[in-house]
Amino acid sequence: MNLQKRDQKHLWHPLTQHKLHAEHLAITKAKGALLFDENGKTYIDGIASWYTCMYGHCNDYIIQKVTEQIGKLDQVVFSGFTHPPAVEMSEKLMAILPRNQQKIFFSDNGSTSVDVAIKMSLQYHFNQGKKRNKIIALEDAFHGDTFGAMSVSGLSVYNGPFEDFLLTIDRIDTPTFENFENVKQKFTNLVQTGEVASFIFEPLVQGAAAMKMYPAELLSQLIQIANNNNVLCIADEVMTGFGKTGRHFASDYLENKPDIMCLSKSLTGGIVPMALTTCTQKVYGAFYDNEISKGFFHGHTYSANPLGCTAISAGIDLLISKEMQDNSQRIQKKHTAFNKIIKNHSKVVSTRQTGVIFALDLNIKMNRYGNLRDQLFKFFMDNGVCLRPLGNTIYILPPFVITDAELDKIYKTILKALDTL
Amino acid sequence: MNLQKRDQKHLWHPLTQHKLHAEHLAITKAKGALLFDENGKTYIDGIASWYTCMYGHCNDYIIQKVTEQIGKLDQVVFSGFTHPPAVEMSEKLMAILPRNQQKIFFSDNGSTSVDVAIKMSLQYHFNQGKKRNKIIALEDAFHGDTFGAMSVSGLSVYNGPFEDFLLTIDRIDTPTFENFENVKQKFTNLVQTGEVASFIFEPLVQGAAAMKMYPAELLSQLIQIANNNNVLCIADEVMTGFGKTGRHFASDYLENKPDIMCLSKSLTGGIVPMALTTCTQKVYGAFYDNEISKGFFHGHTYSANPLGCTAISAGIDLLISKEMQDNSQRIQKKHTAFNKIIKNHSKVVSTRQTGVIFALDLNIKMNRYGNLRDQLFKFFMDNGVCLRPLGNTIYILPPFVITDAELDKIYKTILKALDTL
Repeated sequence: MNLQKRDQKHLWHPLTQHKLHAEHLAITKAKGALLFDENGKTYIDGIASWYTCMYGHCNDYIIQKVTEQIGKLDQVVFSGFTHPPAVEMSEKLMAILPRNQQKIFFSDNGSTSVDVAIKMSLQYHFNQGKKRNKIIALEDAFHGDTFGAMSVSGLSVYNGPFEDFLLTIDRIDTPTFENFENVKQKFTNLVQTGEVASFIFEPLVQGAAAMKMYPAELLSQLIQIANNNNVLCIADEVMTGFGKTGRHFASDYLENKPDIMCLSKSLTGGIVPMALTTCTQKVYGAFYDNEISKGFFHGHTYSANPLGCTAISAGIDLLISKEMQDNSQRIQKKHTAFNKIIKNHSKVVSTRQTGVIFALDLNIKMNRYGNLRDQLFKFFMDNGVCLRPLGNTIYILPPFVITDAELDKIYKTILKALDTL
Repeated sequence: MNLQKRDQKHLWHPLTQHKLHAEHLAITKAKGALLFDENGKTYIDGIASWYTCMYGHCNDYIIQKVTEQIGKLDQVVFSGFTHPPAVEMSEKLMAILPRNQQKIFFSDNGSTSVDVAIKMSLQYHFNQGKKRNKIIALEDAFHGDTFGAMSVSGLSVYNGPFEDFLLTIDRIDTPTFENFENVKQKFTNLVQTGEVASFIFEPLVQGAAAMKMYPAELLSQLIQIANNNNVLCIADEVMTGFGKTGRHFASDYLENKPDIMCLSKSLTGGIVPMALTTCTQKVYGAFYDNEISKGFFHGHTYSANPLGCTAISAGIDLLISKEMQDNSQRIQKKHTAFNKIIKNHSKVVSTRQTGVIFALDLNIKMNRYGNLRDQLFKFFMDNGVCLRPLGNTIYILPPFVITDAELDKIYKTILKALDTL
């Protein structure tokens, strides 16, 4: 029996209606920007396996570092103990984070990093004797699937069974130059109630909302208003972090920096799960007290897992290397050139780009999990390109190591796909 | 500057009031049951680093398997794709799980595995057109720190800032032969309302409640009552799973098996974070439908991370090996012999044992995070033994590979510690 058949016996895949999608392609190998299936067919990984393997699959440098670490220290309790990979990682990360970020808290996936950020923001006020129970989030936000993260996610197409269990969230539209006066007014009214603990957002690019992009300067203005009203700002950089927007972090484009940041996905370069919630000294200071109960009593067993920390350090070495920075520039230029070709295509409504993220909207209505979208996905895969359209949006978010030839093949396959529609 | 000092600059440790606990011991190496600090001092890891490294730190067999995998496939999207480590792991795990468990869903830590279990149980009823919004949990339960997991945890000493955000939970006392008639009556009344979606419990041993142990036969009776009323039963085996209770799972002691199980911690043998939520065909069946929206729309990016799956398979090979099973028997006998010596000690109120877990309560009142408890912890560490008392409970949960001499040193150090109190 092949892997695809064996898979069906016991594995329950994420975000999947198994009755309609019984078969899952078995990938047995990966290297650089390529995936290899069990029949030997290759696919260009145009989305870096959900934005994780940005330095290329099975990156030799990361593997070398992790393999060195694995024989030294696998795991130790991180309450009362520390270890070299955590310390070294903290120093490397601090060197590239926005300067106001000073403290690092660990968890294991983007969702938990958001639950941690929400809890930090609530307790920040609580510890100062203030009860602030409201959170502001953007429409069409996606922040994860645990109860806290799910609550702040606006993309709750399938939240039906859980609605009664979600936190109460106030929502504002994603700011644009068109709606900004209204958004700013609504935001100002909300934060002036004194009931808002925090404002959470995916800076610049809302990934799950089909790579919706919005201007840094408008977000920066909202952050300023939040600051003036002692509302903490949480930048969920799980998708945008580590170079994808053309700078190390999307927050690097903001004049006013967030108080709290959430990091995961390409944090470890695609090797193992890990997530971080970082914050300013001001946030940390609200927990630093002679009273034990003002501490942050949240903790995951694998906090600061040494292999994960080692992978983060190796990933940062790569991110700041000339090779990867040049790669990023190269990809950005290629995207821009491709945009000139495709933006006026009769099937294309609009295109957009931030850093190495390129997206286009088709003039055809497609449901997020509908048949048309599935046909498009199948067309790409049949042609050896792994792109996962989000409804009628096709986007590319390739690993930095993708070659020009591989990029050209992705572009050509998209053009071919448009002809079939 | 040594690691301990460097640690203090940017790292925020879990479950820690940093103003009162500034220093964290730097561990640089680990092997078998031993931890080595940055000054070369060794410590016997008497709690297997929070019950993760049960096959010993840096286990050669696990390292070999993970090192082989790391060059083949690091990560791939697990929606629409599968891979050999996931398939192989699923087959190995199914061979040791209670027979009624048929499907495996992935996440990255114990908390998220519980959030997944809660969501599964709510949607199970919702998909059948029934709204059941109540969950039953045990007093003093601990199930994790994300909002869902935190809600079902009764040990919410520090939940103050978050109380308004928690799910509504009905609680029953942990069943004992003394209270069982009352507990059974209250439980029966609750489940007969038709409003209860699920009942969650740590089977046999409540870890964070200071290794509180309770009889399998009583829990089994409650499960029977739940079954009769279509209330799903969730066994949180994050701590108890993989041999710690003397059988592969605590649920193996139950006549009536749970519908859903949560697994993490020693699941990967201490190498990397990963968690699973498994369930019966009946639970899965409620999501298997022609309607997309009846699917389970939950998904973490690193779901089924290949390195994690490889570590699980290697861990299962070890768990079922004669070597580890013999080790478990040996440790259980040693604990029983130690119990004869210590149970009548004047400072000891009571002792208890399940599998390789041994616990004793002191006749001295100690706060969970108090000074006396900290002094006791320090005494153990000074003597080269890593044990972390929970309030006035001292417990041992050693890796299976611990030697007799190492166990004897732990026992002797506990006896010495009692003399200092």
